[in-house]
Amino acid sequence: MVDIKITRASVLKEKPASSTLVFGKSMTDHMFIADYDEGQGWHDPRIVPYGPLQIDPAAKVLHYAEEIFEGLKAYRTADGTIQLFRPLDNIARMNKSAERLCLPQIPEELALAGITELVKLERDWVPHEEGTSLYIRPFMIGTDPALGVHSSHHVQYIVIVCPVGAYYPEGLAPVKIYVESEDVRAVKGGTGMAKTGGNYAASLRAGDRAEKQGYSQVLWLDGVHRKYIEEVGAMNVMFKVNGKILTPDLNGSVLDGITRRSCIQLLKDWGYEVEERRISYEELFQAAEDGTLEEAWGTGTAAVVSPIGELAMEGKKVTISGNQIGELTQKLYDNLTGIQWGRLADPHNWIMKL
Amino acid sequence: MVDIKITRASVLKEKPASSTLVFGKSMTDHMFIADYDEGQGWHDPRIVPYGPLQIDPAAKVLHYAEEIFEGLKAYRTADGTIQLFRPLDNIARMNKSAERLCLPQIPEELALAGITELVKLERDWVPHEEGTSLYIRPFMIGTDPALGVHSSHHVQYIVIVCPVGAYYPEGLAPVKIYVESEDVRAVKGGTGMAKTGGNYAASLRAGDRAEKQGYSQVLWLDGVHRKYIEEVGAMNVMFKVNGKILTPDLNGSVLDGITRRSCIQLLKDWGYEVEERRISYEELFQAAEDGTLEEAWGTGTAAVVSPIGELAMEGKKVTISGNQIGELTQKLYDNLTGIQWGRLADPHNWIMKL
Ligand SMILES: Cc1ncc(COP(=O)(O)O)c(C=O)c1O
Ligand SMILES: Cc1ncc(COP(=O)(O)O)c(C=O)c1O
Repeated sequence: MVDIKITRASVLKEKPASSTLVFGKSMTDHMFIADYDEGQGWHDPRIVPYGPLQIDPAAKVLHYAEEIFEGLKAYRTADGTIQLFRPLDNIARMNKSAERLCLPQIPEELALAGITELVKLERDWVPHEEGTSLYIRPFMIGTDPALGVHSSHHVQYIVIVCPVGAYYPEGLAPVKIYVESEDVRAVKGGTGMAKTGGNYAASLRAGDRAEKQGYSQVLWLDGVHRKYIEEVGAMNVMFKVNGKILTPDLNGSVLDGITRRSCIQLLKDWGYEVEERRISYEELFQAAEDGTLEEAWGTGTAAVVSPIGELAMEGKKVTISGNQIGELTQKLYDNLTGIQWGRLADPHNWIMKL
Repeated sequence: MVDIKITRASVLKEKPASSTLVFGKSMTDHMFIADYDEGQGWHDPRIVPYGPLQIDPAAKVLHYAEEIFEGLKAYRTADGTIQLFRPLDNIARMNKSAERLCLPQIPEELALAGITELVKLERDWVPHEEGTSLYIRPFMIGTDPALGVHSSHHVQYIVIVCPVGAYYPEGLAPVKIYVESEDVRAVKGGTGMAKTGGNYAASLRAGDRAEKQGYSQVLWLDGVHRKYIEEVGAMNVMFKVNGKILTPDLNGSVLDGITRRSCIQLLKDWGYEVEERRISYEELFQAAEDGTLEEAWGTGTAAVVSPIGELAMEGKKVTISGNQIGELTQKLYDNLTGIQWGRLADPHNWIMKL
């Protein structure tokens, strides 16, 4: 048992209507914090009123990006139960990120207690409307106030949560994707397989550029050959080609997504062959031309499954499944969200009820 | 003229003896801050007592590493003048970093005023002893309290300063370098040419590993071929081979170092041929075997010039200039530090007196 000291906020915020929610902007009344000091280990787990952190201007997180994070959701089922989806997978991934970034390992029990106890305290913040949820953001930052480029001796693990609206308020809709050929998000040997700030900082410019051209996400190519598909925006990506499912393998620069893992499991359950391997953009454009590229979708906690209707790259442009939602994409979406919101059975024990 | 509001600290810290200084740990009494808001631009330049920043837990800098920084020094000359070395080059580089990271451009006048006015106020903190200086750390962070992966609308430019001891208290000494073959610091298309946190986060693990094996820095190879030399630790690197100077070209993943630039200028002044080009580690080890690798050194603001005495890589190991300081390395060090501390003439107008 983790003994968490709770200090309640004296004034509670007004809860925004679900229809007005913008992703990641309406933080709740409290946050969870635990400290780590070298020699002492993790200590002082606590829930305190949500508010600014006091960070020394020389803190490593502000200069050397000693930071990792996770993202998961709490879902409210029809009977009012609040439940998490594969939270231990997020904690395990955070510890993998920590290893790459020279941040300390956090015990599963502590990391999980920070999530579950905060969500329980904020249970009234978990929205009721179809497709809404409470987004959970655990993160770890190195805060030593010293400018040397070294790993931090003082670290904080923090959990913040915020209600989020339905990702597709008007139903699942296909997105247009631009293949980025200049900027690189991550490279083998770098930090791509970790969920760490630097990868996202590197991705901003291409994201902005794509948006200005009317595309909602970027398709990332590998940094070595500039040819193999890695991810789409901050999602993993899958393709249905000639009845078979293709997805980039976890080669070191691709994040090991929990939605990806869950989709692969469901697809195998349904008898699909899933190939995790290198996929070049040429192969993909060729399949589109041949008519064998049947469906394409991104996978991630925020959108769950995001159908891709158009793929563009310097001059080239292809439409996928007639810019409609593919049948399998829809089935994956329905089944995953069905499990997450408790409408369907949970055959793989992915759900943790609170 | 930038109108800076100054709020003085009511209690001043005791200044540590130069001999006890650890790099980047003794921050002075004040710091400079200016805010940027989209639509409004830069505003409220101010000097305030040094102390914790209030940062929202959802601030982009803590999750997506929206952060860039610079590093330069203020030097005290024999007659007590305090002077900077090429500060406008640092500001120009910060604006290049800002472009890559989707942070706003900062006007040169404002960025410079933040540096010069803070250093003037803290002039008693600029140490007197040989080889000591005041290290200046300007940085910019994106602080929007919102979890979406987007560029920040609210940004802060902050300058903090700290006295630093002599880098080589017992005189210039050669260091041992380990060629890193697993982790990658930066790749073309990524953020290597920007001075941004993510690059340093990516470098920590290899640095730690090298240190544990008794090496003081890592020699970084390129992320594409894993073969071409990029930098050494957080320094640029140069080699004297057969009388000629070789240094990696600025290919996109190498930082455009101001010490590098200054060394190249001095070397050309002295009649050396300087080749900026791809250099493989094989070429280097071969030159070492042939006896044509005469000298090797790193260049950077912290150490100025850092002689390399040994280079090691999985099984292979070579000694350079008999693990002594090369003649040219010493000459570069003497001339650059001579200009910086005002002992030598400044033929290229690199010095800005305060
Ligand atoms: C870069 C990146 N790829 C993929 C994903 C998908 O991971 P998950 O399914 O665990 O949310 C994320 C996070 O959402 C991500 O940030
Ligand atoms: C990665 C890296 N390379 C090279 C340098 C050298 O740059 P400069 O000579 O401007 O200090 C630095 C900074 O010191 C650096 O951080």
